[in-house]
Amino acid sequence: MKYTVGLGDMLASFSPKGYERFLQANEFDITYTGAEANVLGSLSCFGLDTRFVCRIPENDIGTAAIRHLNGMGIDTKYVVRGGKRLGVLYLEKGASQRPSKVIYDRLGSGICEAVPADFDFEKIFEGAGWFHFTGITPALSDTTPDVIKEACIAAKKAGCTISCDLNYRKNLWTSEKAKTIMEPLLEYVDVLIANEEDVEKVLGIKAEGSDVENATLNHDGYIAVAKQLCEKFNLKAVATTLRESISASDNNWSALLYTDGKAYISKKYMIHIVNRVGGGDSFSAGLIYAMQMNKDPQETVEFAAAASCLKHTIEYDYNLVSVAEVEALMKGSGNGRVQR
Amino acid sequence: MKYTVGLGDMLASFSPKGYERFLQANEFDITYTGAEANVLGSLSCFGLDTRFVCRIPENDIGTAAIRHLNGMGIDTKYVVRGGKRLGVLYLEKGASQRPSKVIYDRLGSGICEAVPADFDFEKIFEGAGWFHFTGITPALSDTTPDVIKEACIAAKKAGCTISCDLNYRKNLWTSEKAKTIMEPLLEYVDVLIANEEDVEKVLGIKAEGSDVENATLNHDGYIAVAKQLCEKFNLKAVATTLRESISASDNNWSALLYTDGKAYISKKYMIHIVNRVGGGDSFSAGLIYAMQMNKDPQETVEFAAAASCLKHTIEYDYNLVSVAEVEALMKGSGNGRVQR
Amino acid sequence: MKYTVGLGDMLASFSPKGYERFLQANEFDITYTGAEANVLGSLSCFGLDTRFVCRIPENDIGTAAIRHLNGMGIDTKYVVRGGKRLGVLYLEKGASQRPSKVIYDRLGSGICEAVPADFDFEKIFEGAGWFHFTGITPALSDTTPDVIKEACIAAKKAGCTISCDLNYRKNLWTSEKAKTIMEPLLEYVDVLIANEEDVEKVLGIKAEGSDVENATLNHDGYIAVAKQLCEKFNLKAVATTLRESISASDNNWSALLYTDGKAYISKKYMIHIVNRVGGGDSFSAGLIYAMQMNKDPQETVEFAAAASCLKHTIEYDYNLVSVAEVEALMKGSGNGRVQR
Amino acid sequence: MKYTVGLGDMLASFSPKGYERFLQANEFDITYTGAEANVLGSLSCFGLDTRFVCRIPENDIGTAAIRHLNGMGIDTKYVVRGGKRLGVLYLEKGASQRPSKVIYDRLGSGICEAVPADFDFEKIFEGAGWFHFTGITPALSDTTPDVIKEACIAAKKAGCTISCDLNYRKNLWTSEKAKTIMEPLLEYVDVLIANEEDVEKVLGIKAEGSDVENATLNHDGYIAVAKQLCEKFNLKAVATTLRESISASDNNWSALLYTDGKAYISKKYMIHIVNRVGGGDSFSAGLIYAMQMNKDPQETVEFAAAASCLKHTIEYDYNLVSVAEVEALMKGSGNGRVQR
Amino acid sequence: MKYTVGLGDMLASFSPKGYERFLQANEFDITYTGAEANVLGSLSCFGLDTRFVCRIPENDIGTAAIRHLNGMGIDTKYVVRGGKRLGVLYLEKGASQRPSKVIYDRLGSGICEAVPADFDFEKIFEGAGWFHFTGITPALSDTTPDVIKEACIAAKKAGCTISCDLNYRKNLWTSEKAKTIMEPLLEYVDVLIANEEDVEKVLGIKAEGSDVENATLNHDGYIAVAKQLCEKFNLKAVATTLRESISASDNNWSALLYTDGKAYISKKYMIHIVNRVGGGDSFSAGLIYAMQMNKDPQETVEFAAAASCLKHTIEYDYNLVSVAEVEALMKGSGNGRVQR
Amino acid sequence: MKYTVGLGDMLASFSPKGYERFLQANEFDITYTGAEANVLGSLSCFGLDTRFVCRIPENDIGTAAIRHLNGMGIDTKYVVRGGKRLGVLYLEKGASQRPSKVIYDRLGSGICEAVPADFDFEKIFEGAGWFHFTGITPALSDTTPDVIKEACIAAKKAGCTISCDLNYRKNLWTSEKAKTIMEPLLEYVDVLIANEEDVEKVLGIKAEGSDVENATLNHDGYIAVAKQLCEKFNLKAVATTLRESISASDNNWSALLYTDGKAYISKKYMIHIVNRVGGGDSFSAGLIYAMQMNKDPQETVEFAAAASCLKHTIEYDYNLVSVAEVEALMKGSGNGRVQR
Repeated sequence: MKYTVGLGDMLASFSPKGYERFLQANEFDITYTGAEANVLGSLSCFGLDTRFVCRIPENDIGTAAIRHLNGMGIDTKYVVRGGKRLGVLYLEKGASQRPSKVIYDRLGSGICEAVPADFDFEKIFEGAGWFHFTGITPALSDTTPDVIKEACIAAKKAGCTISCDLNYRKNLWTSEKAKTIMEPLLEYVDVLIANEEDVEKVLGIKAEGSDVENATLNHDGYIAVAKQLCEKFNLKAVATTLRESISASDNNWSALLYTDGKAYISKKYMIHIVNRVGGGDSFSAGLIYAMQMNKDPQETVEFAAAASCLKHTIEYDYNLVSVAEVEALMKGSGNGRVQR
Repeated sequence: MKYTVGLGDMLASFSPKGYERFLQANEFDITYTGAEANVLGSLSCFGLDTRFVCRIPENDIGTAAIRHLNGMGIDTKYVVRGGKRLGVLYLEKGASQRPSKVIYDRLGSGICEAVPADFDFEKIFEGAGWFHFTGITPALSDTTPDVIKEACIAAKKAGCTISCDLNYRKNLWTSEKAKTIMEPLLEYVDVLIANEEDVEKVLGIKAEGSDVENATLNHDGYIAVAKQLCEKFNLKAVATTLRESISASDNNWSALLYTDGKAYISKKYMIHIVNRVGGGDSFSAGLIYAMQMNKDPQETVEFAAAASCLKHTIEYDYNLVSVAEVEALMKGSGNGRVQR
Repeated sequence: MKYTVGLGDMLASFSPKGYERFLQANEFDITYTGAEANVLGSLSCFGLDTRFVCRIPENDIGTAAIRHLNGMGIDTKYVVRGGKRLGVLYLEKGASQRPSKVIYDRLGSGICEAVPADFDFEKIFEGAGWFHFTGITPALSDTTPDVIKEACIAAKKAGCTISCDLNYRKNLWTSEKAKTIMEPLLEYVDVLIANEEDVEKVLGIKAEGSDVENATLNHDGYIAVAKQLCEKFNLKAVATTLRESISASDNNWSALLYTDGKAYISKKYMIHIVNRVGGGDSFSAGLIYAMQMNKDPQETVEFAAAASCLKHTIEYDYNLVSVAEVEALMKGSGNGRVQR
Repeated sequence: MKYTVGLGDMLASFSPKGYERFLQANEFDITYTGAEANVLGSLSCFGLDTRFVCRIPENDIGTAAIRHLNGMGIDTKYVVRGGKRLGVLYLEKGASQRPSKVIYDRLGSGICEAVPADFDFEKIFEGAGWFHFTGITPALSDTTPDVIKEACIAAKKAGCTISCDLNYRKNLWTSEKAKTIMEPLLEYVDVLIANEEDVEKVLGIKAEGSDVENATLNHDGYIAVAKQLCEKFNLKAVATTLRESISASDNNWSALLYTDGKAYISKKYMIHIVNRVGGGDSFSAGLIYAMQMNKDPQETVEFAAAASCLKHTIEYDYNLVSVAEVEALMKGSGNGRVQR
Repeated sequence: MKYTVGLGDMLASFSPKGYERFLQANEFDITYTGAEANVLGSLSCFGLDTRFVCRIPENDIGTAAIRHLNGMGIDTKYVVRGGKRLGVLYLEKGASQRPSKVIYDRLGSGICEAVPADFDFEKIFEGAGWFHFTGITPALSDTTPDVIKEACIAAKKAGCTISCDLNYRKNLWTSEKAKTIMEPLLEYVDVLIANEEDVEKVLGIKAEGSDVENATLNHDGYIAVAKQLCEKFNLKAVATTLRESISASDNNWSALLYTDGKAYISKKYMIHIVNRVGGGDSFSAGLIYAMQMNKDPQETVEFAAAASCLKHTIEYDYNLVSVAEVEALMKGSGNGRVQR
Repeated sequence: MKYTVGLGDMLASFSPKGYERFLQANEFDITYTGAEANVLGSLSCFGLDTRFVCRIPENDIGTAAIRHLNGMGIDTKYVVRGGKRLGVLYLEKGASQRPSKVIYDRLGSGICEAVPADFDFEKIFEGAGWFHFTGITPALSDTTPDVIKEACIAAKKAGCTISCDLNYRKNLWTSEKAKTIMEPLLEYVDVLIANEEDVEKVLGIKAEGSDVENATLNHDGYIAVAKQLCEKFNLKAVATTLRESISASDNNWSALLYTDGKAYISKKYMIHIVNRVGGGDSFSAGLIYAMQMNKDPQETVEFAAAASCLKHTIEYDYNLVSVAEVEALMKGSGNGRVQR
């Protein structure tokens, strides 16, 4: 099986114990995370070979981040050491009517100052079959769009399929800037993962009839959007998760895949949430795995939806589930009987 | 903004980790709590200046309690040091069909032996605009009713509005004794917070048609009671929370405010509970804040209900939420989407 | 009150904190457990005198297991020290669509090599009124069926009622072997606890119309099975729990008792689960307690159902609830109001 | 082997994690302790049968204390349930130049209101061979001296040897009161454990040439005192520990036994302290064990010194060591090589 | 008593549990710290009124830092909210031959962008009697030297004594830059705290005969340096700690105060270290307290040395000791006997 | 740089928190360990490429062990999945006079049933330059000696240097059996690591004049032994650690290397111990690293001694130190000054 390569930022993620608020926390759990690394971690649990590319500072916290990736089974041979700091994020877990809260402190992290010359993309994509990136990386600095662009060119040359999770973050850039940067990058992309908000904010394409805040979802509107995207950017597939937020504790969850002019919608799961961070990344991973396994579109969206459903029951950012566990949920009733 | 003053007892509150029972706990979380202190802590999070008055023993556990109050931003300049012990309470968190359990061990705590002469009420109420007390304090000993009475007189003299949370505790005194003590104190009170059980047990006024145990609530009955109370004690307002206990894990929650001859009922929240301790105190705080901000009655009861809804999602006794967070819930859908 | 005796295996049970998966756990909670010990622990909380019989290795881990039993108030005077190891089990707690997972590592534990001569059954059953065992013990090795048989003979001689929880475990033996071993032992049994799966797998008797995996339960089918069992094995009573698994977080729970030719079904509880391990054992304990107290059949099944409902709200394997707490749930609304 | 009986108070002991001070602690470890219970716990680890007598309140915290004793293997059949509260103590562990700190909050604990009639001493001492009490119990209230006196009378009648650890606590009573109460009780005592400070403060007998504060110890002075004590109270033996406090982290430790007109001094241990609480109680236990085993005086004092040396390496109050471990230290070099 | 004012940076300090290394840590303790805040925290424990001035970002982590200061009893009314981030430091505790390790990540923290106009120094120094700053603050950015200069001018105007801890940090600036910035600021300083390395690196004045790395200390050399400093900068006093590092676990500790042309050297303490972070700050606090109390020079240096000796026995950065505890060590033997 | 290969067993290692004893522990830290894996983990921290070979069961606990190795940077591509269980060990950390205690429960672990055919040694040693094994592996079962033999043959063929740590464990086999098995394997060995006890027990060669139990070490005796070993088995080098156990808390530590007919002795370190487990393995790693780096003998033994000195200051089994940290200790004073 060929490597899946991801390129993006790494952060030290600090979260208070249980449901404690920042104001009362004296202890924090630490994990090392990043959207692309989360995707690779999940793929690694599915048994794929994965390779992560980043620029990480040369200190013990940076080394700890790398060891964490190794502990997920991710190859880090091509991680470049450099930069002044590892970015930090603070995550407070919400419950019921109280939303989760994320405070980013990623100013000047290693990847922000990276330039294409830092990476030997030819070697990086040796033996690679898939390249995944997200819209977060080009948003981080003025040099990162070029890094992604060069990576895409090398990936294409190596014969990779390229997936992109649009992942719009309003505190990183404006819609206008996002559009200017992302549109040219989408030329290289085969598979786009993007929810309605992403598409509207980054690409200016709006689905009619949905109201994200109020958890009403309009499949038809989204399908129309997906069709437009496929045509405009010559995409092989567009996918999105369909989250209905009932509260910070309970969500409904399904997914939609549009490919070859048709839409495929998964089963819907009613989830009692343990930790929803990384839900989107685990969906990307499910999708990438299923597509690499050449599953048919319905199976693909079911696999990705089931995988990401399970993520919501797992602590921290990585989706530590096996293919067997995902398939058991796809085929079973999700009734949670003890496995002995 | 003028100070809000609270006077009452402080306790060391020990609770086992998570859902452990007393019988299996080897570690306890400690927090320092008290009904009035909880109210002030919440007001302090709303940005108000607060002052707590108590009598706390001169040892490190007592000092820790004071530091805890300071850490909530509460002024403790007028806490008197003295007495033999800080009271203790043991709290076991319930779940589903298993109720939470509180064991009080507050015999002979500092405030129990306090007398009016221990406090310089004139100075205490300098710059104060509101005074809050609960029915717990006069119940604690034979000297505390006098302390509260002198505090009320000084507060009135300083121009304070006075609020009282009736908070009847059957293990502290009988209905008869409560009535004898509380009725004269209510002469000083402007705003009364009291649920049906409190009113019935302390003041002997019963709402028809409700069954607290079985979570059926009768708004009309309570409104009639509130009317009676306003007339009898010349109150500016009467307020109550309306809790429907479905289980120790799930409650419905709303609130009712009666003022100027009219009743105002808040939105109802379906809460998946993290910790319900301090729910009533957070409601008092929401009410006191909104009234000091001169919000209209509907906004007032909505603010108090939303604030205390959020308390149920927060660990330990204090309602660590900001005004912005309360308002987001009042105006939003409470769908718990991540805030980045 | 006479002793209740239990005989079975003990294991060190390691479980990650909260909802962590094995793959991410750096700390494990340890408890010492076993189906029969769990039953005795619960009976001991109900105030009965209990005695546990086992063979436990002569090292500090073995001693810790015994101390744990003592700490539950269980008499361990007749625990035999010997064998190479204490068995181990690893328990990962599930949530929502992710099931709990148990990995057994009990190969060659102390009881496996036990022979009847290791135990002085005459003394063990001195003063005993009830003997309980489960189908796990005879499944553990070639010598344990004889141990159970000799225990049953001695128990009968001492005038004990004998209960057996069939507890079929497919990773310990085949249906065929289970049938061969268990049928002769059932000759000694008065009270059989067995769910549909147990009965079908061990005794080859199938209830029509139920689908355990999909949480549809067919009372009539089970009653027919119970009737057959009572007749075939001359049983005084047959009982079963009726679990509807909605997810790993939510279950419906009730119970059925068949005795004297009639079936008694308990109230149904909708449980938000803290920890479901030991649910079946807590039901056995409730049943044994109620029958020893000579409660009528309906009260008996209600007591056992309420007791085991509460188990689901308690961490680890033992049902740390008092008779008063069980009765409060039986008679109350289970609305979980705080007990002060 | 006959039972060893202890009678005294039980407390919930709360201590911050590691070396945290009270002022910074958010979590406390809890253990349930008492001087006499500590002695019994240690004897139980040595394999003796032990019985603890106390009056403990009828609530879950009281029950947890009893379960804790059971978990040490101590028989609690004769613990009386009653009283308003379980006493509390707060323990802060010192290090280097910072001393450990204990805050007692034991006012009105169960035993304080106990009277002789609460206990059926005849039954309690059935099968007993030894009775142990400390000077703390008679100091707790006006009724406890009578309880101890009646216990002594019954113990003597049952043929017990009686040991007393003088254990003077200046915050419980004055020297004068201690003398008045303790002297008559010493009439029943066979073995007295008392350090120089105890003897001076309680009995007014002063050893020349020692300075406890400055860790200079004068064996000859103490031997003279012991001689006097034996003669005055017709004692079989007097024993003391010899602690040289270098810092809160390092102590030298040995012991002295005076019996039959001769003094026996143990080996001296240089201890790097884990937790010194319960050091004296573990010495009493070592002494009681060795005397019951009829070891000769030198072996007795060596056993008691080695046992209590090991206590300093163990967390919390109980000396969880076996006879084999004590003997290995007595005979070995104490070099701490790993035992595999 | 007049206020003591401190101005400087605040950081979130993350440290792994116990002696874990960064590479293996999954949990971090958090505390909020800063050299000047540490000094104020200690003074607050001594009972002085303190006021902290800083610029702290407007997010929950910033608010948590402020609440932490409040919980130490420090007034934060004049903390300005602003800036992009709270700086971070990672602290790994060393042991024996393995040194402690600090990784700073303070780039662009709130104070770095502060300018004099952010602060209303007239109000800040109202009622103040002492102002303390360290050499860290002017090293942080190009604007902070001006902030400190304006603060000094206002402090002098308000009649404050000014103390400065030179605290040279080689990773913040070069010796040359430090000299250029610090020399003009020393014009305002009355009391200088500086060890040999600080003086050499910042002011270019070298003591002969010492070797800091090898723990040989040369009092005469330092006294000569102190004399020079007093003359050159017209100082009232110069003080330094004298640390002999034997290992990360054991240090010898004493202090030297030079004032009025004479040198005063304290007692020397052999410390078994719990946590040495903040040792220097606790010395500054001891000095500032003793000087404000008008103790004579010998008493002053003894108080400061004893206070900072105790800091080494306390977890995290703040010296949570009372005046009574410091005096007990000054006057006692430091033998660490339990205080009951 | 070429790979270093290790082959041996893996165990789940459970240890109570801090200094808790097994009898009181409710939580255990878990790590996954094994003598050879520890050596590789250390080499990986030194920056070498490492490969671990083992047979590990196909369940989540086995997978967690592999992930743990990956997290150390160790290549596990050639770990074979199979067998019934992962072995377990329980480790209780000693202090002062109380020794650490290890309880092994490794019966029937994956490697025990391994046969040479399970491993593709040709591939395993592709690109390898060094092979390390210990005397534990051949002791585990009847098939493991053959596995080691085949590995040695393949390693030699691939041009590897082979090192063996004799590591005699009396609870695994007798001296006689050890001799029979180990002598033929030593034919393949180039570098032997063995302390006096190992050599005496396994090879029957005794050094005169030492007494391991009493921490007197006789260098001359050991040198004579090393000479004999080199000659008999045609070894390139023999090395040993020289541990003087003062107590479980304090050890002196140095090392001796015999090569080319000469002995080289390292500096001696006085260590205050955090955790001594893995001390020997970290010495092997230091030796293997230094020899691969072609350091001269004195530097080699200094590097290995310093590396393993640092291990004693680190929690759990792996020596998480860098080459720079080892060299800093070799060249510095070990005075433990904070590194900022």
